Amino acid sequence: MKLQLAIDLLDVNAARRLLDEVIDLIDIVEIGTPLILQEGIKIVTAIKASYPSITLLADLKIVDAGEIEAQIGFAAGADIVTVLGLAHDVTIQGALNQARHHGKQIMADLIAVNDVQSRARALEEIGVDYLCVHTAFDVQSHGQGPLADLQAIKRVCQQAKIAVAGGIKPATLPNIVTQQPDVVVVGGYITGQTDKRKAVLAIKQLLNAARRP
Amino acid sequence: MKLQLAIDLLDVNAARRLLDEVIDLIDIVEIGTPLILQEGIKIVTAIKASYPSITLLADLKIVDAGEIEAQIGFAAGADIVTVLGLAHDVTIQGALNQARHHGKQIMADLIAVNDVQSRARALEEIGVDYLCVHTAFDVQSHGQGPLADLQAIKRVCQQAKIAVAGGIKPATLPNIVTQQPDVVVVGGYITGQTDKRKAVLAIKQLLNAARRP
Repeated sequence: MKLQLAIDLLDVNAARRLLDEVIDLIDIVEIGTPLILQEGIKIVTAIKASYPSITLLADLKIVDAGEIEAQIGFAAGADIVTVLGLAHDVTIQGALNQARHHGKQIMADLIAVNDVQSRARALEEIGVDYLCVHTAFDVQSHGQGPLADLQAIKRVCQQAKIAVAGGIKPATLPNIVTQQPDVVVVGGYITGQTDKRKAVLAIKQLLNAARRP
Repeated sequence: MKLQLAIDLLDVNAARRLLDEVIDLIDIVEIGTPLILQEGIKIVTAIKASYPSITLLADLKIVDAGEIEAQIGFAAGADIVTVLGLAHDVTIQGALNQARHHGKQIMADLIAVNDVQSRARALEEIGVDYLCVHTAFDVQSHGQGPLADLQAIKRVCQQAKIAVAGGIKPATLPNIVTQQPDVVVVGGYITGQTDKRKAVLAIKQLLNAARRP
């Protein structure tokens, strides 16, 4: 299981300070949507220049103009760009065409999808590299989490790698890791702690425990 | 009927050259999603500073973190921010809270919504200021347009203002104006012409003709 660190709501210098503390523990660095809106795609280029060996995900949440918007992300240095699973198939395909052109990857975010099993299967057929089961930030405070959807997806998907996101923290991680997702996305729990390295280590310990037979 | 000019795929200087040519003919200036991804939200601030009296729409297509992302748009100077109609109700409400806090407005984009009548009514109940019937760029080449959905929405919506977008040009406009939308969004047709002012005037003539009894 890989650990993806989602960075939102920081400027580029704060993002660098965070990454300097924890970068050796992180598999995928996500530049979050609010940060991209605030700074523009140049933040992807800046972070990639500072940490050239990392796998960088740009959370563009593309819903239209798939080729054009994915091209913006890959040209800036992203290794993975996100599209909304809710987008038209032709938009997903356009983003995927750009990914293949650049030798890069697409993650389809299942946020706000009602029938996740059916849509996830269709997205696998189109050929997305990752499916992300994602409980929206705005509904997390209503007690919702991604576990049930993760279980549903794991029952029907074999081709795409599975990522899981949505308010994940040490208290909720043990149930999630039983489902063996390929990528666990953690953001606010880490960025909200004073000692961010200690927070990442706590997450890593739970991921490693789940790897044991 | 108001005319909204959608600006995509340009840098800030090219956007200024376009606006210098046509600004007196435009009711709402839209900073498109690809342009915001490329430049960051500062492009909204830059355009608003150059044209302080315009109504400026930031096409953020918010699907999560409604309060946070709408705040990014309004703080930068946007008068209208877009949310996806597909987003959770609580996300729409969060964006709307920010709009009310700033004395500004929300447009809900119905892109990729299947049951447009039912979702549009629900979005009206939440209180969005505008509903935008929108045929995705990526499906326009498959011959689809927004007319049928516009007719469907006009039959059931009375509270929100209705905008219509998706490959609109002089050839398709006469059928659209019979439905009396409040806002007609035109982008690629105008930006694709050599004489952009002539293109806007052609659109305006069709809008004005439809206003006659």
